[in-house]
Amino acid sequence: MKINDIPTRTLWRIEGQPAIKIIDQTALPHHFRTLTLASLEDAAHAIRSMQVRGAPLIGATAAYGVALALTRGADDASLAAALSTLGTTRPTAVNLHWALARMRQHLAPLPTGERAEAAWAEAAAIAEEDVAQNRAIGEHGFQLLAPLAAKRGRLDIMTHCNAGWLATVDFGTALAPVYTAFDAGVEVRVWVSETRPRNQGLLTAWELQQHGVPHTVIADNAAGLLLMRGEVDAVIVGADRIAANGDVANKVGTYLKALAAQAAKVPFYVAAPRSTLDFACPAGSAIPIEEREGDELRVVHGCDDEGRATRVRQLPADQAVANPAFDVTPAALVSAIVTERGSCAASAAGLATLYPEAADE
Amino acid sequence: MKINDIPTRTLWRIEGQPAIKIIDQTALPHHFRTLTLASLEDAAHAIRSMQVRGAPLIGATAAYGVALALTRGADDASLAAALSTLGTTRPTAVNLHWALARMRQHLAPLPTGERAEAAWAEAAAIAEEDVAQNRAIGEHGFQLLAPLAAKRGRLDIMTHCNAGWLATVDFGTALAPVYTAFDAGVEVRVWVSETRPRNQGLLTAWELQQHGVPHTVIADNAAGLLLMRGEVDAVIVGADRIAANGDVANKVGTYLKALAAQAAKVPFYVAAPRSTLDFACPAGSAIPIEEREGDELRVVHGCDDEGRATRVRQLPADQAVANPAFDVTPAALVSAIVTERGSCAASAAGLATLYPEAADE
Repeated sequence: MKINDIPTRTLWRIEGQPAIKIIDQTALPHHFRTLTLASLEDAAHAIRSMQVRGAPLIGATAAYGVALALTRGADDASLAAALSTLGTTRPTAVNLHWALARMRQHLAPLPTGERAEAAWAEAAAIAEEDVAQNRAIGEHGFQLLAPLAAKRGRLDIMTHCNAGWLATVDFGTALAPVYTAFDAGVEVRVWVSETRPRNQGLLTAWELQQHGVPHTVIADNAAGLLLMRGEVDAVIVGADRIAANGDVANKVGTYLKALAAQAAKVPFYVAAPRSTLDFACPAGSAIPIEEREGDELRVVHGCDDEGRATRVRQLPADQAVANPAFDVTPAALVSAIVTERGSCAASAAGLATLYPEAADE
Repeated sequence: MKINDIPTRTLWRIEGQPAIKIIDQTALPHHFRTLTLASLEDAAHAIRSMQVRGAPLIGATAAYGVALALTRGADDASLAAALSTLGTTRPTAVNLHWALARMRQHLAPLPTGERAEAAWAEAAAIAEEDVAQNRAIGEHGFQLLAPLAAKRGRLDIMTHCNAGWLATVDFGTALAPVYTAFDAGVEVRVWVSETRPRNQGLLTAWELQQHGVPHTVIADNAAGLLLMRGEVDAVIVGADRIAANGDVANKVGTYLKALAAQAAKVPFYVAAPRSTLDFACPAGSAIPIEEREGDELRVVHGCDDEGRATRVRQLPADQAVANPAFDVTPAALVSAIVTERGSCAASAAGLATLYPEAADE
C-alpha cells in the first residue's frame, strides 16, 4: 500500500544486509517512523511490545527473526533457541507458531552452513505469500460484499481493531475486501471502533485515510446501537486463531460485535489466511487468551497540541485491572470465513471444503 | 456516602443562601472539587457539560435550577423560560423532564410571590425522595442478589458507566444493591468497565474505592469474554429512560453487555427510580438518543505524572467520528427492573404490578 503516495510494506529486508526494517506501530498514527531489527532480540522485542502486531505480520516477523538469529550462528542449538525465544513472545496468534514450524521444517534438515541463507529466503517467501494470499482474500471477500453493494448502491462496513495492511505484510485481511470494493468504484464507508485499550482502530483510521477510504471512528460501545439502527451492511474482522470447529479468537471486543450483528441480522465475516487456521485446536475454549499488562488501561497515549507524543494517566498505578487481549467468537455467530481459497461456513465441514488436505493433519 | 470518611452528597443547598453546591464530576476521579451554582445558567451549564450527570442527579439539579431562576424573578414568563432552558440541556434522561413537570405542576398555580420559596422546598423534597428511593432500590436489588451470593459464597457483579451515588443525590441506583450487599457482609467484587468515551467507569471505581468495595477495571471490550468465562454472577446497570414496554435507554455500550449476559445465561438487572419510567413512551425506538460532540472521542482527559489535569489528542480535529451517548436494550434482554417499589419483569404487565396507577397516565 502507500504512505503519502509512496509505496511501502510493513516490513522489508535492507538490501544485502542481515537486517530488516519495520514500521513502528507503537508510534502510529501520531508519528511515522521505521525501526531496524538486526538481531533475534530485536525481533522478539518488536513482537512482544507490539511494534509489529496483527497475526500475519507477527508470523512474518518471527520468520525473519529466525533468519536474524541464524546469521549469527546456525547450529542446532541456535536454531532451537531462536524458535523458543520467538515462540513465547505472544500466545494467542497461531500464525506465529505456524511460521516458526515452517522455518524449522525447512531449516533443520539443512547443513548448518546453508541455514542462514535458506532462512532469509524462506522468510521472504512467507512474506510474499502473505501479500498474495491477502489479495486473494480481497477478491473472495468482495464477492460476498458485492450483492450487498448492488442492493443498496453503497456499502457501510464495520470492523474492529486493525486487520488492514498494517496487520499484514501488505494489503490486509479484513480490510482487503474493503480496499478491493473501493478500488472497484463502490461507494464505501467504514465504521472504525477505537479498540480499547490499545486503540488499534486508530491504525485502521490512519491507513484508510492514506488510501482515501471514507471512515468514521466510534467508541467500541457504540457498535450495538449502529447495528440495531440498520447503519451497517456487514461486519468484517480478522482473526488471531481459528479453531477446527470454526470458533474465532480475535481482538477483545470482537465477540460483542458478533452478538450485535446476529441480533441485527447483519452478516459477520472473518477474513484470515491459511496460517491463522489451527486444525490441531478443536474449539475456541482451547485457545490461550493473552493477559497483557494493566498499564495499557491505566495510561493512554496520544499527542499534545503541538503533535508531540505524550500520555495521560487515567487510573492510579495500584488500581486493579484485568486486560485480556482477545476473546472468542463462537462459530455459530460467524456468517462465513474468508481465506485465500474462497469463503466457507464457520465449521469443520465448511473448512474441509477449502482445505480437504487438513483432515490429514 | 463518604469521601475520605466525610459524609457527603452530590449536591446540597448552601444554608440560607439561594445557591447550591455540587461535586464537579468532570474533575473526578483525578481531582475533587466543588462548584457553586447560583443561577439558572449555572445549573443548565452544569447539566449540559456533565459537571453533574446520571439521570436522577440531572433531575434533582434541574429542580434546583428552577429554584435558582425563580429567586431572580418568579412571574409566569420567568418560570416558562427556566423550564424551557433546563428542558433542552440533555435529551435522553427522562428524569429531567419528570422533575421539571413536577416543579411546573407545583409552582404554576401559586401566587408569584410564593413561588421561589416553594421551589426551593420542592427541589429539596425531590432530592430527599431520591435518596430514600435509592435506599429502597438497594434493599430490593439485594433480594435478587442474595440467592446468588448464598450459592457461591461471594458475588461478582458487572456494571457499566456510573449508576452509583455520584449519579444520584446519594446512594446510587445500580450500585445501591452492591453497597447493601457489601454492608451486609457479602464478599463482593465489581467488574467496572471504563465506559468510553467519557470514562464514567472511572467514577464508579473511585466511589467504590471510597466505600472500600473491591473492584477491577476492564476495557468495555472485555465484558463479553468475562461473561462467557463464567466470571460474572449478575450484571446491574442504571437507566436514563425506561419505556412503557420495558425497553431501556442507558449509557452507550449497555446493550452489548445485555447481549453477552443473555448468551452466558447471566441475569441482567436494571435499577432505576420511578422518575426514570416513561409510561408515555411506548418503546425504546421512540427514545431520543443524544449525539455528543466528537471531541469526546478525539481527546482523552487524565493527569500527568505529577497529578496535574491534562489531556492527549487521539485523533486529528478533522477526523470524522460518531458519538451517540446512549443505546437501547430491548426488554427481552432484561431479567428484571428494580425500583423503589420492588422488582418486576421488563414489560408493560410487569411494570403494572409495581405501578398500577400508571395505567391512568
